[in-house]
Amino acid sequence: MKNTKLQAFTPLFYLLWSDDLLTQKEFTTLKEFIISKTGISPEDQEYLFSKIDISNPPSRNELAQWKADIAKTIQNKPSIKNIFELAGSLSEKDSDIYVSESDFLKLENDLGILGEEVIENFKSKADSFTASSQTTNNFDIQKITKILDGEQAEIIKKVKTVISRPEFAYETSTDIAVYRETVYDWCKILAKENLGNMAYPKRYGGGENIADYFAIMETLSYHDLSLVIKFGVQFGLWGMSVQSLGTEKHYAKYLYDIGTLKLPGCFAMTETHHGSNVKGLETTATYNHNDQTFTIHTPHEKAQKEYIGNAAVHGQMATVFAKLIVDGHDYGVNAFIVPLRDAEGNTLSGITICDCGHKMGLNGVDNGTISFDKVIIPKENMLDRFASVNDKGEFESPIPSDNRRFFTMLGTLVGGRIGIPRSALAAAKSGLTIAIRYSDQRRQFGPEGGSEVPILNYRMHQCRLLPYLAKTYAVHFALQYLTKRFLNKTEAEMQEIEALAAGMKSYSTWSTRDILQECREAIGGKGYLSENRIDALKNDTEIYTTFEGDNTVLMQLVAKNRLSEFRKSFGEMGSLGIINYVYENAKTAIAEKNPIATRRTDEEHLLDDQFHIQAFIHREKTILASAARRIKKLVDSGLEPYDAFNVVQHQMIDVAEAYLERVVLEQFQFAIQAIEDVKIKEILTKLNQLYALAQIEKNKAWYLEDGYMEAVKTKAIRKMVNQLCWDIRPDAVALVNAFDIPESCLAAPIAV
Amino acid sequence: MKNTKLQAFTPLFYLLWSDDLLTQKEFTTLKEFIISKTGISPEDQEYLFSKIDISNPPSRNELAQWKADIAKTIQNKPSIKNIFELAGSLSEKDSDIYVSESDFLKLENDLGILGEEVIENFKSKADSFTASSQTTNNFDIQKITKILDGEQAEIIKKVKTVISRPEFAYETSTDIAVYRETVYDWCKILAKENLGNMAYPKRYGGGENIADYFAIMETLSYHDLSLVIKFGVQFGLWGMSVQSLGTEKHYAKYLYDIGTLKLPGCFAMTETHHGSNVKGLETTATYNHNDQTFTIHTPHEKAQKEYIGNAAVHGQMATVFAKLIVDGHDYGVNAFIVPLRDAEGNTLSGITICDCGHKMGLNGVDNGTISFDKVIIPKENMLDRFASVNDKGEFESPIPSDNRRFFTMLGTLVGGRIGIPRSALAAAKSGLTIAIRYSDQRRQFGPEGGSEVPILNYRMHQCRLLPYLAKTYAVHFALQYLTKRFLNKTEAEMQEIEALAAGMKSYSTWSTRDILQECREAIGGKGYLSENRIDALKNDTEIYTTFEGDNTVLMQLVAKNRLSEFRKSFGEMGSLGIINYVYENAKTAIAEKNPIATRRTDEEHLLDDQFHIQAFIHREKTILASAARRIKKLVDSGLEPYDAFNVVQHQMIDVAEAYLERVVLEQFQFAIQAIEDVKIKEILTKLNQLYALAQIEKNKAWYLEDGYMEAVKTKAIRKMVNQLCWDIRPDAVALVNAFDIPESCLAAPIAV
Repeated sequence: MKNTKLQAFTPLFYLLWSDDLLTQKEFTTLKEFIISKTGISPEDQEYLFSKIDISNPPSRNELAQWKADIAKTIQNKPSIKNIFELAGSLSEKDSDIYVSESDFLKLENDLGILGEEVIENFKSKADSFTASSQTTNNFDIQKITKILDGEQAEIIKKVKTVISRPEFAYETSTDIAVYRETVYDWCKILAKENLGNMAYPKRYGGGENIADYFAIMETLSYHDLSLVIKFGVQFGLWGMSVQSLGTEKHYAKYLYDIGTLKLPGCFAMTETHHGSNVKGLETTATYNHNDQTFTIHTPHEKAQKEYIGNAAVHGQMATVFAKLIVDGHDYGVNAFIVPLRDAEGNTLSGITICDCGHKMGLNGVDNGTISFDKVIIPKENMLDRFASVNDKGEFESPIPSDNRRFFTMLGTLVGGRIGIPRSALAAAKSGLTIAIRYSDQRRQFGPEGGSEVPILNYRMHQCRLLPYLAKTYAVHFALQYLTKRFLNKTEAEMQEIEALAAGMKSYSTWSTRDILQECREAIGGKGYLSENRIDALKNDTEIYTTFEGDNTVLMQLVAKNRLSEFRKSFGEMGSLGIINYVYENAKTAIAEKNPIATRRTDEEHLLDDQFHIQAFIHREKTILASAARRIKKLVDSGLEPYDAFNVVQHQMIDVAEAYLERVVLEQFQFAIQAIEDVKIKEILTKLNQLYALAQIEKNKAWYLEDGYMEAVKTKAIRKMVNQLCWDIRPDAVALVNAFDIPESCLAAPIAV
Repeated sequence: MKNTKLQAFTPLFYLLWSDDLLTQKEFTTLKEFIISKTGISPEDQEYLFSKIDISNPPSRNELAQWKADIAKTIQNKPSIKNIFELAGSLSEKDSDIYVSESDFLKLENDLGILGEEVIENFKSKADSFTASSQTTNNFDIQKITKILDGEQAEIIKKVKTVISRPEFAYETSTDIAVYRETVYDWCKILAKENLGNMAYPKRYGGGENIADYFAIMETLSYHDLSLVIKFGVQFGLWGMSVQSLGTEKHYAKYLYDIGTLKLPGCFAMTETHHGSNVKGLETTATYNHNDQTFTIHTPHEKAQKEYIGNAAVHGQMATVFAKLIVDGHDYGVNAFIVPLRDAEGNTLSGITICDCGHKMGLNGVDNGTISFDKVIIPKENMLDRFASVNDKGEFESPIPSDNRRFFTMLGTLVGGRIGIPRSALAAAKSGLTIAIRYSDQRRQFGPEGGSEVPILNYRMHQCRLLPYLAKTYAVHFALQYLTKRFLNKTEAEMQEIEALAAGMKSYSTWSTRDILQECREAIGGKGYLSENRIDALKNDTEIYTTFEGDNTVLMQLVAKNRLSEFRKSFGEMGSLGIINYVYENAKTAIAEKNPIATRRTDEEHLLDDQFHIQAFIHREKTILASAARRIKKLVDSGLEPYDAFNVVQHQMIDVAEAYLERVVLEQFQFAIQAIEDVKIKEILTKLNQLYALAQIEKNKAWYLEDGYMEAVKTKAIRKMVNQLCWDIRPDAVALVNAFDIPESCLAAPIAV
């Protein structure tokens, strides 16, 4: 270079030619900049122009030389902080370059670059903290597993042993006929191991242990989910409908054979035209007193039974839900045992079964449609625990209201709404184990000049997976709680427990849906290959949000129950008055009475479990009171109740969700309080904090609207969520390993 | 009944025994209530107790009689508003029943019921407004289709005609070998119709019409998406890589055969260890000057090419991306044509191809891995538009920086980031058409005693689907805009257009992911059956968020581009100063200077398109300035730029999203401004308002934190979103029909 002063321009030349974000416009900018510096001689100016002539780029070697010069200069003088200093050092005459510091700053802006960034990227990157985060093991993984498994540890272990056997290798055939047979064979093995009849009375070969049955359902869900559903249809829906709706004569006749899978059967409730609104079923069971029989009949095509598991191939009998007609009078929906096929698998006369065909998932389950053309069954086939036809041919029931009897019947089947969310939970655990293990191994990008970094070190990636890990732990404890409540239920609690089950079914299955979606995307192309099992996990559980009660419909039910409970709990006082009182009071309580709390952002407060639960409770109560008030107002203003509930449907979902989130947080907190091991307590507390704050962040618009928090606080919470993700990251792999999913079940090559 | 006065209690008895929400506790409550009424004689009291004895329920007939009595009373006196009045009418002595109005109100509360609700449910439900909403046709559907299709109407029509032919009946085999051949055959038909080579130069048999090529990609996406991807791999990725990265000699040799599908090929970029970070590819192309050849080599297993479409079965050649090594020096990633198979399909020596196996979707595409064991190719196989080896064996390039050259090469391939979001858009349209048509037909639940109601009449259901319908229209116009920008691009705009394409690719594919998920759930079990096609649409497009650039990574790139543009646009002023100025100014502009606007909730304002776009722009600018400020602060405080960007990754996503939402809204608004037909303009304006307000509602936490809106306004917006959904519902079916998707492509039995 003719004039060493001109070396001051080297960084600019280099940036211009190397940075892919600079465009032609910036060449002009730099040219104008040079022109504006009056001290440069025409000769030098021409030289400078020659270096930024877009039609005449520098040679590759020249560019490399510039880069080397810059790198060397920065290496020699690490104190260099900006381009001005760099330019000075390069020209070797710090005080005598053509341009001032402010000139350079202005130029940086014009070029849209950040000088500090450029300089830093030339320095050695040994101290990148992003790169340095890594997996550690701060606690005894097995201790967590023990806490998670609880009293069911033994049966869980047994199930894991069985499903890890070679004969449980995953079916890879895409032929659904093959797949269905494999799943059926697996069910037979499980029956032989006395796992299917676990909930049945001992006198019919069962284990009389419902707690273990639920644990079996959940543990099986680490394996193929078609297996779980086929298993659940046979032993849960079919067997339990006989047990819950039938009486001793039915138990004696069927339960043993159902438990051994000698008698495969179906649960035929849903019809094409009636899924959510089961009360509207149209299949009829007409009593004929002459020969003491019922005639089961499908009045039209859209009243056929649909999506019935075990129907397309294996089912020999079904519990069929149909409107009972006696003497021309409709007594509402009741249940009947109807034979479908003989032992050789031939469909019986009057029965038409069609295959539902290929589905998004669960293709190992043989769903079908069933139509009945005046099929005659004996009187004793009516499952007569809650209703019957007496010897005189008259309808009899201990429950006078058809409506109430119907819901009582459904109430006995609530077990499905515990089995399904627990199965969904297991699927979420599998997905997270695969995604987090892989993300800890997979490296992509890295600091300039350094090696690539595990993708789990990226903040975005942590934000995608770790709050879900926390949520999964939270849901685990909440489902344990639900199960315990169910097992120890009293008559008076049934309403509440049914609502809780309906709600947790929605909460858990939606959670799993979101988790598996995020897992799929977070692991990219590998997540799309079936061998890594996100495919099956995701598509199989996709229908969990629909079957056993559509989630959106269930959430409306939960909200109605909450509204009813709310009204009862304030029975002592006036009606609208109390609602308004609670609503207004809740609204202003924190905002006006304690302005400090709405703005508190210190770590101690943000991580305080009392702050968390109070915030959840406040939200739950306020939303509930607000919904109650709105409905009352709408009805008072003359709206049909049906229309009023339609107008507030969106709020009803919020009512249910706020309730469920409070229960989930509460149960997670209770579970942690009971832990003694300090390290376990510490890491689970962090997860709990992450769950709590991530939910608050998700709901922050509500907290801001309500005035319970101010912007300064919600912003601090967002930062804290990010920080907790960062803090938990080193333990993330250990935390998924604590789920203790058999490696043969995980099976994903990327999760090794 | 002994005493007619006691009939006042009938409603309570009825409620107690019929309402499935009342539990044993309420029996006690009612008993205590009766005891507390001192005026009742012991005899009457005993009678009353007998009616609420849980061990002795009323007969079914008695319950029915109560119900009939109540119904008759209400029918005779429609003015009855609450249980007290009902009780009075029943006892026929209004002023002389045992209990007062406040007693009844208290009891209602204790029982958790709402008297008005109970009464209303006994009345005839002819006037339910929920039930009355129905599909209408207020505008000329074909006019909307014409606007959507625009200048490409002719080619769109041609493609629709072709894919509606009988030979394009969907493949139903689950055997992926069969499926792949079907898709391959379909591609051959399309090639014969001169659809594949549409973008190639006319002198090589092409149509030289890139606009039509994109329209073809989008329209084909109404059909099988494996077909679209296989088509895109062959004619887009493989053909366009030759056209974009090669020179005349390559065109002459290959383009004609590629366009006719005589020469099926691959685009081999991604490696197992390098997907997002393509710059880190490890395959090598080593130049040997002696024989003027390159040796293509896979150094280790994780450097094999992976997920390569057309590789597993059909591909005969591939554009392979590899690091060019000349004289031991690494010149970065370049592209080479490498033969894989002979015309008979035999894999050539040195090439190892494995099948990627079953995938979540797109199983009609034969993805595979490719390894090269020192495969020798002639020098002319280097695609040498941007770099070459000269006659002396030296590396040459018009672009001196490896980095910049690499991004220039990638920039020429940006067309894929237009084709994919447009394909995603078409899939969303298919899903919405199926879901909305079905929801208009499907009835479930209804007012007490009335017939069942189309589920699209439910507010929740509208909220699930209609904002997405609005978004789909919005994205349509934004992608039209992107395409036009791309087709008319100048050198100076390339950066911006590349960023816009990357961003719109993410925005559209994520949108489609969300839409198809909601469609699946909104149509319940029917959505799970493969025959209704949500399965294929959802699983096939699932990978769209990953391939052609991982969405999360792309969003970071978009944000970096925005930051760079931001810095440039304020180049005239100081650096940190200006950032702070913009940031603070934006923050306080509305909040402090115009407190009325932050609280304005009148309809005129909420529906004003200027309010919408200003709110979007404000968000875009503020988030961008805030991110710029934060990064500068972090770097100034001594953080590595790499670490600083990691800390703000979450904010970077927001930067990109806010930018894209503004572009999408703006383009939708522009499109509407150009419409003349009043009715079309009216309905599209409503959709536009719904899109705008639904996005603001989604982002309301941000607006509240920022102070741009107050709670009263965000709550009003939520209501307005619900109202717009309700208003648009009658036109929803017409609006999906305007997409004009061939019925044979929709194919779902539920969408007829």
